[in-house]
Amino acid sequence: MSGFTLADLVRENARSYPLREAVACSGERLTFAEFDARVNGLAAVLGDAKVRRGDRVLWLAQNCHRALEMLFACAKLGAVFVPANWRQAAEEMAFVIEDSQPRLAVWQEAEIGQRVAAARAVAGRDTAWLRIDELGTRADEEPAEDIDEDAVIVQMYTAAFEGRPRGAQLSHRNLVTSSLQHAFTQRYGWDDVHLASMPFFHVLGLLNAVAIFHVGALNVVVRRSDPEEISRLISAERVTRAILIGPTVGDVIRAAEHHRHDLSSLRTIPGGGGADAERWSQMTTPDLPPMGGYGQTELAGQVTYDAYGPRGEGSHGHAAPLAVVRIVGEEGDELSPGEAGEIVVRGPQIMRGYAGVASVGEWRHTGDLGRREADGSITFIGPKTELIKTGAENVYPAEVEAALARHPAVKESCVFGVSDPVWRKAVKAVVVLRDGESLDAPTLIDFCKEHIASYKKPRDIQFVTQLPRAASGTIDRDEVKRLYGG
Amino acid sequence: MSGFTLADLVRENARSYPLREAVACSGERLTFAEFDARVNGLAAVLGDAKVRRGDRVLWLAQNCHRALEMLFACAKLGAVFVPANWRQAAEEMAFVIEDSQPRLAVWQEAEIGQRVAAARAVAGRDTAWLRIDELGTRADEEPAEDIDEDAVIVQMYTAAFEGRPRGAQLSHRNLVTSSLQHAFTQRYGWDDVHLASMPFFHVLGLLNAVAIFHVGALNVVVRRSDPEEISRLISAERVTRAILIGPTVGDVIRAAEHHRHDLSSLRTIPGGGGADAERWSQMTTPDLPPMGGYGQTELAGQVTYDAYGPRGEGSHGHAAPLAVVRIVGEEGDELSPGEAGEIVVRGPQIMRGYAGVASVGEWRHTGDLGRREADGSITFIGPKTELIKTGAENVYPAEVEAALARHPAVKESCVFGVSDPVWRKAVKAVVVLRDGESLDAPTLIDFCKEHIASYKKPRDIQFVTQLPRAASGTIDRDEVKRLYGG
Repeated sequence: MSGFTLADLVRENARSYPLREAVACSGERLTFAEFDARVNGLAAVLGDAKVRRGDRVLWLAQNCHRALEMLFACAKLGAVFVPANWRQAAEEMAFVIEDSQPRLAVWQEAEIGQRVAAARAVAGRDTAWLRIDELGTRADEEPAEDIDEDAVIVQMYTAAFEGRPRGAQLSHRNLVTSSLQHAFTQRYGWDDVHLASMPFFHVLGLLNAVAIFHVGALNVVVRRSDPEEISRLISAERVTRAILIGPTVGDVIRAAEHHRHDLSSLRTIPGGGGADAERWSQMTTPDLPPMGGYGQTELAGQVTYDAYGPRGEGSHGHAAPLAVVRIVGEEGDELSPGEAGEIVVRGPQIMRGYAGVASVGEWRHTGDLGRREADGSITFIGPKTELIKTGAENVYPAEVEAALARHPAVKESCVFGVSDPVWRKAVKAVVVLRDGESLDAPTLIDFCKEHIASYKKPRDIQFVTQLPRAASGTIDRDEVKRLYGG
Repeated sequence: MSGFTLADLVRENARSYPLREAVACSGERLTFAEFDARVNGLAAVLGDAKVRRGDRVLWLAQNCHRALEMLFACAKLGAVFVPANWRQAAEEMAFVIEDSQPRLAVWQEAEIGQRVAAARAVAGRDTAWLRIDELGTRADEEPAEDIDEDAVIVQMYTAAFEGRPRGAQLSHRNLVTSSLQHAFTQRYGWDDVHLASMPFFHVLGLLNAVAIFHVGALNVVVRRSDPEEISRLISAERVTRAILIGPTVGDVIRAAEHHRHDLSSLRTIPGGGGADAERWSQMTTPDLPPMGGYGQTELAGQVTYDAYGPRGEGSHGHAAPLAVVRIVGEEGDELSPGEAGEIVVRGPQIMRGYAGVASVGEWRHTGDLGRREADGSITFIGPKTELIKTGAENVYPAEVEAALARHPAVKESCVFGVSDPVWRKAVKAVVVLRDGESLDAPTLIDFCKEHIASYKKPRDIQFVTQLPRAASGTIDRDEVKRLYGG
């Protein structure tokens, strides 16, 4: 049956919104008709570089409207766009180059050039290298390729498995499905203006830009997360939607206050605004439900949305309209509401598989732990890593950590299994208390028993003043175990 | 790749919205969990009636929540739901019975029983007949069938072609795609309450009910378009969405005024309210853009939406987010904006084909005439029937009628070709003027030349006081030609 590809999307939008602006980036502005013509021109440049159907095009540069042009040029040729994390070390970049074997690599001098130079030694002879400012364009006809919606269009590298990242392969249908669900649940419309500051190498960064494009709205592209530039552009472009996370929220507030920028056009509530949340809500017009939900690169975005369905008990909203979501036990059996198990997903947004790995099945096993609440909403608990087998029972550290976090005196914790002569493994928790709080282990263990099954409660709790962290800021579990695992 | 079927939809919604109401009908109310269990029970009843994968189940009854149960029971079994027009004459019903060869026919005594009795003589021995109140249900497990999203789930009979209707075959993917587009563009949400009064044998009637179900909202089902009952239910159920057309609008207003029903929960603007539009807007809360757009049964609903994209020059809004829409000339070549041609469509909502007809191609040729405006929006002009070939040029009557209709004195017209020694065919118009207006042919011909190419203008205009009409209320073109074609 006939589908709908990203090539269709860029062609159709040139017809439906020929005169409306599609992208604004560093002073350049293109309508949907101009953008489509530029995509055809870039496809011709790719043809000159011998990029053919199935070939990978690596993007080792920051956000730019030309990255979006490249996505759609690859779509029209049947090639695969590989947006790589430009923050990576040279060695990590080298891994992506070796793994993706690109026909063409586009790179950027500023901030990234030195690492690219160190990494590209591993590239094969068949890889052409073009600096982004050498990329050019030229007038050309629409490419004549006929593209299948199940063909891979994006290869995106995800978190490390067994020490190495993997290239998740997303098809046209994966992204188009996720884009429409995203636009629907986020209530995107033609009159939105989206600040594309989230990196395109993150699935949510790319997906948001595609979804905004999909509905005929404007993407204002920002090279990288720069609070001054973000504040300036929100004000100048009357931006309505932006994904701003963590400390960026406060930085943007201060930049806006300093430069007297007007943020009132913004309608979204930022994730984790913390202490700045109140000031933010005064400076913007947050009339939309909070963004959020549960997703993965391998799912081409989110499969649950906070803003979809009624507000329920679950922390992560309801399943997306085309997602089949199940919570399953160790044997793959579906669990009842209230029980924690692995989140598994089926439907048209599930990736085609990892590059170089035998095809996956119909169901995506996320490796994440969740729970269906009695009202049908979904709670994401945490990664299913490090299952603790204690006696005949399975305990997920994330579930115990969630129970500990409910105690008002607990700031954070890390739970893992320690050897136990009777139970094989016993549950141990290392806990950091909030400033000024005190608590003893038996009290906290009793507290846990109120929220989780008794066999899941920690048998040993150790209080510490801080937990070791990885460079990314997450708790370094291996180091916690080395220090406190005995 | 894994898709998403109507079987998935009913199963998922039982998980996502177990406690929310899915349907209310004649005093019965079912939650999504109860509804799904009822669907399984009905599937068991179908199994008893020997309904197997691919078999048709004919619905010769009015709207009822059991029709929706039947749709989803067929979905879980891989059977095909055939909602037939219960207003048809016995002879027309007989055609549908013969053409669809149902394994099971469900019928209703009231209003329809006599015609069914006359029609069912043509049914084969293999058709089981069940009156709707004999349908029953029983507790049963989920059917074990694995359903392909490209399998046909609905066969719906469309307007006559060459004297006989045809069964348009819609797949799960067709309907799911159209449902999501519909929910998105109409801004349906979980808190909507939809009055399902439009017959399920109309694609828009069925689609609206499915889209509302899709987002976890409530369908209040009405057996038939009864103004008293509609008014009562809007008030009692706090209905937010209803499709009311033509004179029904005024009838519902009068019923509400008479019974002091409260219509203020209604958010939709009715189609063609006419003189009652103002009163309607006082009694309801029309805070949504007007419904409307262009569609066909063969497209599983609409491919353009008034409410999608910015308000443009086109009368029928913008193309739906997953629809590829082209305006093509006689040779299949894409026309430029401003030129009238046939509307052709590609994408995941295009039907699988007509029952018993060789498979159609990738593109659906709608047989309708439209125009892409310069701003990308779309105007639907009318059926492309009866192309007039005059000289070397093609003239579509609908286009000339649209030009005539722009003159304030013209009430309606019918345009057709008459034999002409020089031009092969010449354009003739039969025109009805508005009460109290007068106009001469040369003035009206000159007026036409301002709006359409000179070769399209009528060479002969005949003024009459009324045009002959078919039983359906549309102008009877054959009769017009017989009377005035010379």
